[in-house]
Amino acid sequence: MTPEVLKQQLAAAAEQINQVIKDDLAAVTNPRLAAILEHALLAGGKRIRPLLTLLAAQLVQGHKGTENPQAGTATPWQQLAISFEYLHTASLLHDDVIDHAALRRGRETVNTRWDNGSAILAGDFLHARALLLAGRAGGVPCLELIGTATQAMVDSEFIQQEAAASRDWREETYFAVLDGKTAALIAAACEAGGVAAGGNPAQRRALHTYGGNLGRAFQIIDDLLDYLGEPGATGKAVGNDLQEGKMTLPLLIARQRASAEQQAELEAIITAPAQRRREQFTRVRTLLEQTGALAACRQRAEELIAAGDQALAVFAATPQRDLLHALGQYVLQRDR
Amino acid sequence: MTPEVLKQQLAAAAEQINQVIKDDLAAVTNPRLAAILEHALLAGGKRIRPLLTLLAAQLVQGHKGTENPQAGTATPWQQLAISFEYLHTASLLHDDVIDHAALRRGRETVNTRWDNGSAILAGDFLHARALLLAGRAGGVPCLELIGTATQAMVDSEFIQQEAAASRDWREETYFAVLDGKTAALIAAACEAGGVAAGGNPAQRRALHTYGGNLGRAFQIIDDLLDYLGEPGATGKAVGNDLQEGKMTLPLLIARQRASAEQQAELEAIITAPAQRRREQFTRVRTLLEQTGALAACRQRAEELIAAGDQALAVFAATPQRDLLHALGQYVLQRDR
Repeated sequence: MTPEVLKQQLAAAAEQINQVIKDDLAAVTNPRLAAILEHALLAGGKRIRPLLTLLAAQLVQGHKGTENPQAGTATPWQQLAISFEYLHTASLLHDDVIDHAALRRGRETVNTRWDNGSAILAGDFLHARALLLAGRAGGVPCLELIGTATQAMVDSEFIQQEAAASRDWREETYFAVLDGKTAALIAAACEAGGVAAGGNPAQRRALHTYGGNLGRAFQIIDDLLDYLGEPGATGKAVGNDLQEGKMTLPLLIARQRASAEQQAELEAIITAPAQRRREQFTRVRTLLEQTGALAACRQRAEELIAAGDQALAVFAATPQRDLLHALGQYVLQRDR
Repeated sequence: MTPEVLKQQLAAAAEQINQVIKDDLAAVTNPRLAAILEHALLAGGKRIRPLLTLLAAQLVQGHKGTENPQAGTATPWQQLAISFEYLHTASLLHDDVIDHAALRRGRETVNTRWDNGSAILAGDFLHARALLLAGRAGGVPCLELIGTATQAMVDSEFIQQEAAASRDWREETYFAVLDGKTAALIAAACEAGGVAAGGNPAQRRALHTYGGNLGRAFQIIDDLLDYLGEPGATGKAVGNDLQEGKMTLPLLIARQRASAEQQAELEAIITAPAQRRREQFTRVRTLLEQTGALAACRQRAEELIAAGDQALAVFAATPQRDLLHALGQYVLQRDR
């Protein structure tokens, strides 16, 4: 599948999913809440999580055919799918309050445009709505998946706070945070689709592995791009993680691979004040290159995507499986 | 039932429910999250919501007997019951962040003792856990009840903000806020117990009415006590609502019943700065007495409790029904 074809398919799928979300939000009568939800939910975005739910369900149904949607009515799979967009958005709304973030994707956050209370409450609304939709469409097994993922998301925030406070720079801790923060919900989105379509345990496990690995690889590439981009050349800001003192995988691997001298230099920079860390960005990047950390990082992401593809071998080769493979490649190739 | 017997029964029930909560929280492995949840959940309190769920379930089962609990394992009814305590606590955690509250029941709030982020995340955890427990124990019908109640709770916060901003002093708006903020969850706690025990639609409606009215009456009495208590004599602070500019039922009724002159005086005080409102507290109380607003308020609460009792007539007279009646009287008689 060419990148161009993938892009078209993703855009068409996102448009369909946006319509389901709009129809669902039409039931919100409070004008202020409706405006906030529209701002938070309909600001673009690829709708990867709902798309994964739908693809997973279709993959499991295989030759048995797919749902037969009626115009204007969301199918159970669609309802389940948007519940993952709601959960994702709810966590972003709350994260932005916690981090005092003013901007997201270049637009004002809800806590800035309205206030913290509105952002917290709108997140709570979406959370409750998501669990209701998921329970209706996928029953208790889907609730269990979401409950586990939400628990992992909350846990990982606490693990991250503790790790930062105690300077816990173990790779194990990085992956524990990564799993809870990004991978758990994407894995659940995939597995839930499989559950809703009546998948067997092996199929469910395969979808969970694929989704979790896609999420992990996505975040690793994200952490990599924070060191690789040319400031100003790509749309993505560069050097943020270093400036904020975030210990991401590139730094963790560099520390492991560094000579005693390089390690001392890296630690001196990492523990320096933010201003100094920013000044030393180019030097850190050089150290990441010299230690091979950047290449090692990319290799980890590639291995994860390969393992995810491997897991999908339990399914027949269908356009849906091709699209899931293409998504993995897309994660590896993105440069912003 | 004497108040003393009621008190003993409530204390015994609360202790049982606390044990179920403790057993459930034992699964939380993150030490920081566990400490926060213990602080938020196990600080005393009557556990009225879970108790209502259990009583409602037992009421519906009637002569068919009740659940047969196994030691150390929460029964489905118990799981469903604590889900309402979790939902209530989650909303308090988030409310305290929104209101920058430093104390709750005389203890530091989670946002004060830890931080806003911890309070938001712990609330999210409890919310997800509640919906999972409720879904497991009561299936999708119970999720629908909780989803509707949560939606009403969020809605009412927005209605309240708008009403305060636009000086919307209609009784209708007061009751809309009251319904969402207090009554919806208590009504859902009652109805869910009925659902879990296989109640028919008439029984479900009766439980919903009883619970909603109990919640409404509770809040009306709360608003009344804010004007009635003697500062220093009871444990409850007095005059808070006036000082914070909250338009509660006593003021709303007083405005309706006041002469043109009294009305002008009341409005001048209500719209004055907080310091001035505090100084005028005794004068406002006198106006509430002169207009008969305090008596009218109490009458509303009594009518609601009577209608709730009436609704329970669909059930046979059992110790559970007696206890629900006694709870209504308790709400009317409390003086702090």
